[in-house]
Amino acid sequence: MVINVRTAVDLGASLAQALRYVNAWKSRTVVVKYGGSVMMSGVSSAGRDTVIEDLVLLKGAGVDPVLVHGGGPEITRMLERLGKTSRFVDGLRVTDEETMEVVEMVLAGRANKMLVSMMTAAGGAAVGISGKDGKVFQARKQDGPEDLGQVGEVESVDTTVVKLLSTNGYLPVIASIGIGREGQSYNLNGDHAAGALAAALGASKFILLTDVPGVLAAGVDDRPLSTLRAGEARRLIGDGVISRGMIPKVEACLAALSAGVPTAHIIGAAQPHALLVELFTEQGVGTMITP
Amino acid sequence: MVINVRTAVDLGASLAQALRYVNAWKSRTVVVKYGGSVMMSGVSSAGRDTVIEDLVLLKGAGVDPVLVHGGGPEITRMLERLGKTSRFVDGLRVTDEETMEVVEMVLAGRANKMLVSMMTAAGGAAVGISGKDGKVFQARKQDGPEDLGQVGEVESVDTTVVKLLSTNGYLPVIASIGIGREGQSYNLNGDHAAGALAAALGASKFILLTDVPGVLAAGVDDRPLSTLRAGEARRLIGDGVISRGMIPKVEACLAALSAGVPTAHIIGAAQPHALLVELFTEQGVGTMITP
Amino acid sequence: MVINVRTAVDLGASLAQALRYVNAWKSRTVVVKYGGSVMMSGVSSAGRDTVIEDLVLLKGAGVDPVLVHGGGPEITRMLERLGKTSRFVDGLRVTDEETMEVVEMVLAGRANKMLVSMMTAAGGAAVGISGKDGKVFQARKQDGPEDLGQVGEVESVDTTVVKLLSTNGYLPVIASIGIGREGQSYNLNGDHAAGALAAALGASKFILLTDVPGVLAAGVDDRPLSTLRAGEARRLIGDGVISRGMIPKVEACLAALSAGVPTAHIIGAAQPHALLVELFTEQGVGTMITP
Amino acid sequence: MVINVRTAVDLGASLAQALRYVNAWKSRTVVVKYGGSVMMSGVSSAGRDTVIEDLVLLKGAGVDPVLVHGGGPEITRMLERLGKTSRFVDGLRVTDEETMEVVEMVLAGRANKMLVSMMTAAGGAAVGISGKDGKVFQARKQDGPEDLGQVGEVESVDTTVVKLLSTNGYLPVIASIGIGREGQSYNLNGDHAAGALAAALGASKFILLTDVPGVLAAGVDDRPLSTLRAGEARRLIGDGVISRGMIPKVEACLAALSAGVPTAHIIGAAQPHALLVELFTEQGVGTMITP
Amino acid sequence: MVINVRTAVDLGASLAQALRYVNAWKSRTVVVKYGGSVMMSGVSSAGRDTVIEDLVLLKGAGVDPVLVHGGGPEITRMLERLGKTSRFVDGLRVTDEETMEVVEMVLAGRANKMLVSMMTAAGGAAVGISGKDGKVFQARKQDGPEDLGQVGEVESVDTTVVKLLSTNGYLPVIASIGIGREGQSYNLNGDHAAGALAAALGASKFILLTDVPGVLAAGVDDRPLSTLRAGEARRLIGDGVISRGMIPKVEACLAALSAGVPTAHIIGAAQPHALLVELFTEQGVGTMITP
Amino acid sequence: MVINVRTAVDLGASLAQALRYVNAWKSRTVVVKYGGSVMMSGVSSAGRDTVIEDLVLLKGAGVDPVLVHGGGPEITRMLERLGKTSRFVDGLRVTDEETMEVVEMVLAGRANKMLVSMMTAAGGAAVGISGKDGKVFQARKQDGPEDLGQVGEVESVDTTVVKLLSTNGYLPVIASIGIGREGQSYNLNGDHAAGALAAALGASKFILLTDVPGVLAAGVDDRPLSTLRAGEARRLIGDGVISRGMIPKVEACLAALSAGVPTAHIIGAAQPHALLVELFTEQGVGTMITP
Repeated sequence: MVINVRTAVDLGASLAQALRYVNAWKSRTVVVKYGGSVMMSGVSSAGRDTVIEDLVLLKGAGVDPVLVHGGGPEITRMLERLGKTSRFVDGLRVTDEETMEVVEMVLAGRANKMLVSMMTAAGGAAVGISGKDGKVFQARKQDGPEDLGQVGEVESVDTTVVKLLSTNGYLPVIASIGIGREGQSYNLNGDHAAGALAAALGASKFILLTDVPGVLAAGVDDRPLSTLRAGEARRLIGDGVISRGMIPKVEACLAALSAGVPTAHIIGAAQPHALLVELFTEQGVGTMITP
Repeated sequence: MVINVRTAVDLGASLAQALRYVNAWKSRTVVVKYGGSVMMSGVSSAGRDTVIEDLVLLKGAGVDPVLVHGGGPEITRMLERLGKTSRFVDGLRVTDEETMEVVEMVLAGRANKMLVSMMTAAGGAAVGISGKDGKVFQARKQDGPEDLGQVGEVESVDTTVVKLLSTNGYLPVIASIGIGREGQSYNLNGDHAAGALAAALGASKFILLTDVPGVLAAGVDDRPLSTLRAGEARRLIGDGVISRGMIPKVEACLAALSAGVPTAHIIGAAQPHALLVELFTEQGVGTMITP
Repeated sequence: MVINVRTAVDLGASLAQALRYVNAWKSRTVVVKYGGSVMMSGVSSAGRDTVIEDLVLLKGAGVDPVLVHGGGPEITRMLERLGKTSRFVDGLRVTDEETMEVVEMVLAGRANKMLVSMMTAAGGAAVGISGKDGKVFQARKQDGPEDLGQVGEVESVDTTVVKLLSTNGYLPVIASIGIGREGQSYNLNGDHAAGALAAALGASKFILLTDVPGVLAAGVDDRPLSTLRAGEARRLIGDGVISRGMIPKVEACLAALSAGVPTAHIIGAAQPHALLVELFTEQGVGTMITP
Repeated sequence: MVINVRTAVDLGASLAQALRYVNAWKSRTVVVKYGGSVMMSGVSSAGRDTVIEDLVLLKGAGVDPVLVHGGGPEITRMLERLGKTSRFVDGLRVTDEETMEVVEMVLAGRANKMLVSMMTAAGGAAVGISGKDGKVFQARKQDGPEDLGQVGEVESVDTTVVKLLSTNGYLPVIASIGIGREGQSYNLNGDHAAGALAAALGASKFILLTDVPGVLAAGVDDRPLSTLRAGEARRLIGDGVISRGMIPKVEACLAALSAGVPTAHIIGAAQPHALLVELFTEQGVGTMITP
Repeated sequence: MVINVRTAVDLGASLAQALRYVNAWKSRTVVVKYGGSVMMSGVSSAGRDTVIEDLVLLKGAGVDPVLVHGGGPEITRMLERLGKTSRFVDGLRVTDEETMEVVEMVLAGRANKMLVSMMTAAGGAAVGISGKDGKVFQARKQDGPEDLGQVGEVESVDTTVVKLLSTNGYLPVIASIGIGREGQSYNLNGDHAAGALAAALGASKFILLTDVPGVLAAGVDDRPLSTLRAGEARRLIGDGVISRGMIPKVEACLAALSAGVPTAHIIGAAQPHALLVELFTEQGVGTMITP
Repeated sequence: MVINVRTAVDLGASLAQALRYVNAWKSRTVVVKYGGSVMMSGVSSAGRDTVIEDLVLLKGAGVDPVLVHGGGPEITRMLERLGKTSRFVDGLRVTDEETMEVVEMVLAGRANKMLVSMMTAAGGAAVGISGKDGKVFQARKQDGPEDLGQVGEVESVDTTVVKLLSTNGYLPVIASIGIGREGQSYNLNGDHAAGALAAALGASKFILLTDVPGVLAAGVDDRPLSTLRAGEARRLIGDGVISRGMIPKVEACLAALSAGVPTAHIIGAAQPHALLVELFTEQGVGTMITP
């Protein structure tokens, strides 16, 4: 145990420091998006376990974490096993009815319940739902030049059941699926859905856990930018420095910031206890985006 | 509309009668098991829709319905599509790890969310969870002469999250999956799980919706027994009159009765509004089992 | 029993329909005026009994009925027995001190308590008060060219005790008597008082039960108008089509509508379960007046 | 004003003393029976007014008074006006149906509402009900050698509505009429009914206001006994010292004491502020009966 | 006992009068300043005891008294014993660090606890704090031409802990010491601090108990003015009629009045039960200042 | 800052560990005795400051600390300045009336308020009272062969005001003075009083902060025993290994253990953050005594 080898004086000081952060974050809502790729395969089991443990510890310490998750790679794997190939338009999976069934099964029936199992094993009390339950994510078909099938966008967010679970001691785990006016399912971009929930909950922080350590500066291999202002982020997207998969993540952050969330973070899930370090230290571990 | 052609006098009398039953059932918990076979394929769409509408209407009228569901045929269909054959021992599907994943995906990710969609479309507020969420069904590996893999039996029931959802206006929809002490998933018999939940909730009624119209008397084709005493039911099982798939259903009813649930019902889901007729009339539509 | 002879399919459909209405009316306040003439003599005992049962059933089903009543004919009968003749001015009984005593005795001591007895016998929990208790109807002497003695008009309504009883499971039954600033009693027009209470309670409906089946159209014997707009009602009064005893009833409805009550109804108490049919069906039984 | 002529020192001391009593009686229930004879005619208007004012002042000071009343002489007067003669058996009025109607009208419609008027005029918030409302006095036909018609005796007391009114700031005023299982009315002995209510409410005191100044000792003209033990009271009844109208009063006191009410009092209503003096001074004004 | 010798009629009338006042003052906050000089030495033990008893009686009767106290003479006596001489500037004690320690010890450790002891002995439930506890009196160094050391003035008032104690049945006793932003102590003028608390609490009355019987009119020996308007009070200060020690008292009253307290009183503590007489009679005993 | 120089991995692990302890101690009451000698003089300012900061951090993190304090050396110093010599009998200061005044002034007026100042400066919300306020420590004169004056022992503990403050966000700071039945003050042994409070509050821990690092084993210079069973502790007192000032401390611990407090601790206040290290690490810093 690391703690035992330090002198008691150092130990006391770091305990005091940790408590200062606990006090600062108590009763504040933190929405965490735990991406499909990072959750299922892109991260070592050890890193993955500490994400779960961190969430359970934060809940226990009085912080109010809410987890939104996707499950992209697992969906692809299941579609392949069923002999179904997906077509992608601008990074979005064209979602016909059969694909939607698989998406929903994997997200709400596999990823969601696996996270609940892990949290329960870590001593937490978790309840997994989808964005259809309690109409958390009310969605509509996404507009656009091409018909993407049941790809949807969030129309409005109903936080009632999320708050109900959260204030009664449960850690809510939410699969990023939306529900239409006639009860139909929609395949939502998990980053956007999570950002919208953070905004609707009046969260104090919105954290995207990814398989890269943060927003990378051009020409610098793997050292992420420590902080980034919203305006600068928009400029970097325009300049092409922020590109591809990172674009929807940064956009989800910007949307959450516009809706009043004070800070948004993009951090790498590979580092053990990345969530705790980001929340409970000054320097953090990834990129913090501010308004 | 049927109502308009009647004389107003008849109409008034039947409205009064309906209200008498609403008054009698208000704030009482009714656990309904909606079986996989009946839900997905054995019943016409019309019959299926009225089950959902009935539940939503009962919730709206102040009754507290809780829905537990399975999804057998759909599981089989998905396993087949994935090229996986199941072995059955005494009617129980031997559940290896890969089968368990499919069972959980289909129950918690497909059947559960389809029910939530239908209830939402019918104007209800539903939240679908599995028996793992909030540790509703804490389970252990089922004992027996043969290793059935992750087939489990309910060890204890935690009704906290079910009551939380129910008392806050939501209709809880629960997939019959259990959670072990290390967070592992267990494949539960849906009838037994529902009966155990009815007992733990102190339900006033436990209703099994099936694809047959009730417990059939020997030699009488399709007219179910209207009522059945627990002792008589046990004798009919012993005599082989009650056989095969009906045995676990009757046993789940007997277990619920032993635990204090006043009456248990086995009724056919094919008849429109069967739930309402069973709850709100003297004669009912299926078989009522009493202690 | 009417219900038993129908096919189960029809029965299920009509139960579902009744529940839809129960859901729509739950927790909404309905102020019912049950007139003296209809209550005591103008209606068969059967019709009278169903009014009471309907109120008890509505209360049990979660609707919040409040009953206001008069008692004209019984007052006349008692005055006669005491050898006292009443003089009427524009349909209003000139009320000297001795007459007021009799009015109060009959309304608060006889009609009010008879209604409470009937409700109790029907399984309800009723509490009968007068408009003096808890200062429900604060009144003043009615202005006018002629001195009518203790004939009063409502000055303000205090709904505290009515809501207290209603939200605690009791069905409030209120005699239409008012209280002046020095505690004196006032003889109020029951229709007006009930309308004022409906307005003050923010009722969803105001229903006048009378001895005619509704507002009758000119030249058409006994078929009441099904619906009537406020403007049209005023015109019909001006044209003399609505006349005599119906005028204060329609005026009480118009006053309630002006104060924000969405709809007012004038219906005949003679038809069994008229209240249920009016509340729980589209076509209703009498005249609905809308703003 | 009496107060102004005293020296300030005396004034301060008596204010302090009054506050000591207010503190002692705060939030304690005192059931007061205000008899018909004393209320309507046997007492000067001044004495009658202070009874009402005392009740209002006690309520305002945090004591919880509950008033039960009869109305004998007024009933007799009304029966006479209606040409109806009463027959009495052992002091009980034989009550046929027509007599019961008059009893109920006078008690619940006249005496009850007059008391509410007086309390309202004195600045109080009063609600008058009968023992039928909220089933306060559930009664049955009184047994006995002779058929007394609707003379009843209290079977059980439901204090719900009394407590509801009392804890919400209202002073409950209750006419001593009971309700049978089918909703029928019963003519109750007011002293007994009040004593039963005091017992059911767990009252701290039961006070009978009468037209004599207390229990009179034999041979001593009009000086009431100051205190009396229950056993001694029983002996005085046996010896005939306590006789006629005083017997049911003393018996009602003894019943209340048996049921746990700490002290019962029989005091004269003629003396101004007799209630305050009895509650708030050591010596009191009438007869206190202790267990 | 004075009460026993009066006739019962007088007694009843004065009890009724006392209750009228109790009703009028119930649940209203009265801030009382009990000055150091009057508390410790200027008043006979009898007078002092009745101040304490009056506060306890008022609390018991439902009034909400809050006591603020100083302790001037006792501080002087303790400083003398410690061989420390105070310098005064405009009546304010120059307060160096050592003096502040003594001031705080005497006020919070001696006067405060002595008052708690006396209230407890009188049957009350008291909790003594200083203005530092719960940051009741947040203070800063008083500005001025001369450096007065730790003499402070109230910057803001936090009533949380005072209300917490008061609404939970305790009588709050507050030493007039303030706390600075770094936790340092400030010596406050007790009259001003009490007035500021009365304003912050929205008190119904602010009462200054002093060693003179009120504001004395010029040329009239010891008869205080009965009432005084704020404007007139300011003029009398300007004219020099109100002078020396009375000036800060009147100014504290005027400040409380400006902040919305309806009336402020300066009364002599020497008269037994002066508080009760002032609150509960029309004429009172000292000087009432009105806006 | 120590934290910045560590690797993030270590940092994450120690944050996780700290949170595990926060979760374990949340909402649990910890009574801390902070002795007079250690508080005022025996400990460096740095050590003293971290005691205060630790308490404020614990309160902020959801633990419920309650502080009891003495003030021995300061009392002696003040008595000396006032020319008063104390006589001690078995370590107890003979307390005449004048001595009691000084004890109360110093404890409740100086030590108590200094602690409140320090907590406020550290960002906490503290309220300082004595054991007389709210009758926390009801005491009587201590029995014994010799008259020790106002030396008292705790007779009963009323935790009402302590819980009221604690559950409303305040950190209660309590001077170890008791109150007798007539309101008189008693000089209590602070260790015993704190132990009695820990028992009455059902505390999870009782911690004595002293000027030695724990219970020292015989012959081993300054390494305290890490753990000690109650029986062993009693034996060490009997053997004289535990002696003098340590005896009452160990006895207070044993009394708290007997009353159900799970563990008691004697730790040195000199080490920075000793409280956090004792509560939040396995090894701790002083001596833990278990039943």
